[in-house]
Amino acid sequence: MTGNVEIISVGNELLIGKTLNTNAQWLAKRLTILGLNVRRIITIGDDIEEIDTAVKEAIDRKPDFLITTGGLGPTFDDKTLGGIAKALSVVLTLNKEALKMIQEKYRAYAKEQGLQKIELTPARVKMAKLPKGAKPLPNPVGTAPGVQTQQDRVLIVALPGVPSEMEAIFENSLAPAFREFAGDATFFETSLGISGLMESELAPIIDKVMHENSYVYIKSHPRGAEKTPRIELHLSTTANDSTTAKNRVSRAIIQMTDTIQAKGGKITRFKIKK
Amino acid sequence: MTGNVEIISVGNELLIGKTLNTNAQWLAKRLTILGLNVRRIITIGDDIEEIDTAVKEAIDRKPDFLITTGGLGPTFDDKTLGGIAKALSVVLTLNKEALKMIQEKYRAYAKEQGLQKIELTPARVKMAKLPKGAKPLPNPVGTAPGVQTQQDRVLIVALPGVPSEMEAIFENSLAPAFREFAGDATFFETSLGISGLMESELAPIIDKVMHENSYVYIKSHPRGAEKTPRIELHLSTTANDSTTAKNRVSRAIIQMTDTIQAKGGKITRFKIKK
Repeated sequence: MTGNVEIISVGNELLIGKTLNTNAQWLAKRLTILGLNVRRIITIGDDIEEIDTAVKEAIDRKPDFLITTGGLGPTFDDKTLGGIAKALSVVLTLNKEALKMIQEKYRAYAKEQGLQKIELTPARVKMAKLPKGAKPLPNPVGTAPGVQTQQDRVLIVALPGVPSEMEAIFENSLAPAFREFAGDATFFETSLGISGLMESELAPIIDKVMHENSYVYIKSHPRGAEKTPRIELHLSTTANDSTTAKNRVSRAIIQMTDTIQAKGGKITRFKIKK
Repeated sequence: MTGNVEIISVGNELLIGKTLNTNAQWLAKRLTILGLNVRRIITIGDDIEEIDTAVKEAIDRKPDFLITTGGLGPTFDDKTLGGIAKALSVVLTLNKEALKMIQEKYRAYAKEQGLQKIELTPARVKMAKLPKGAKPLPNPVGTAPGVQTQQDRVLIVALPGVPSEMEAIFENSLAPAFREFAGDATFFETSLGISGLMESELAPIIDKVMHENSYVYIKSHPRGAEKTPRIELHLSTTANDSTTAKNRVSRAIIQMTDTIQAKGGKITRFKIKK
């Protein structure tokens, strides 16, 4: 029903734990809210072979969309486009539209800094070398354009790793298309805070309610320890329209609450996310 | 030289962007500092088939270690051990040692709460059902034991998703063995703050220094925008002993600093991580 998405995060800084992967979370949340279904997130290093392999593997799983973040800048270690080109068996070629975007950026930077011009060095031109057949997506915040291409019905999008740039390109160039793809599909989620029952006591209740509400996904998140239980129960669904989504979740909540209270548990919090 | 590690994070909450994957960052940083090499981090949902596939694919890449987080608890959606068992073509069987660990936990919880006993319901016994041949790792903080097993020379470890439990099992049961495996291998990192040069101006300098210091990995992280540049340069290496690691990085820093200053850039910060 909904479109499947895979995310590939590229960057050694993620693999050494220097950087927390907030980009993947931001994308996952945004895509879910738009009605899409994130299936897998893969984090790999700045390595052409690794990117090539990960992109090929993702395409083989036939998602509707594959989004990469990171590795689009001017430096040697920005290897994402080389890796994607390799995976698609195409060359990197100078894209005129991308070059124009980059030229305009440096023209504006020069003007702001009162310089006559900023030269287009090889490092700067590198950002305009895209996999053959790809098109650039304007970067309203930074310099390197995003990149969009297609292979075997998988729409592939490469976004920069700087969060503000990644988010701006996503909102400007991608969100409208994703929303259209998802149609009326709506994600709806609520969460219940529970006290007075251990997670292991809730387990059979969750099983029963999920079994009887097969479209609703219920997950328990222990917030205290098993022995001093505070549990967050998260209920969510993606449906073809928002009324159906809300009705499904509401039915499951009423059933959960009934049983939890009958077993001596208390609902301490009830939150609907917007 | 160093041991390769893959991490599989299991949890729908990660794929809908509800939860930020801090566990993967914590593990990546700890493993790197211990001298190991994290190659890939994969995030998948609470789904037996997905876990099975991801574990099989990871084993095929022949890392020395495969660590999973999440999906070890008492509820229906805790599916990691089922997925691992499927990937290894073994059954889940009741492990006596794990059962004893869990029994002792509930005995202690009952005592604390002044109850005569807490019954071992099927949901609680579920946490003692391990892939055949696996052994439990004591959980000093929570209830579900960690799990360790082996396949094709890959040591597989399953840790809970609750961060305090994951960290405690890692430190108590795994860190000493990882440290021994890594031997004297040491990770050393420093970072330089640079102002007055655009990332695209730094690019050829980084290329040159990396080329001449092939064991040192240098990555630029733009902190401002390309037009108002503040750049963090991160230099790191893993070597067989700490003196070699430090010497390598120091040599690269001196060379970088020389060239950056000659081009009009300034070093605004210099930080050695401990």
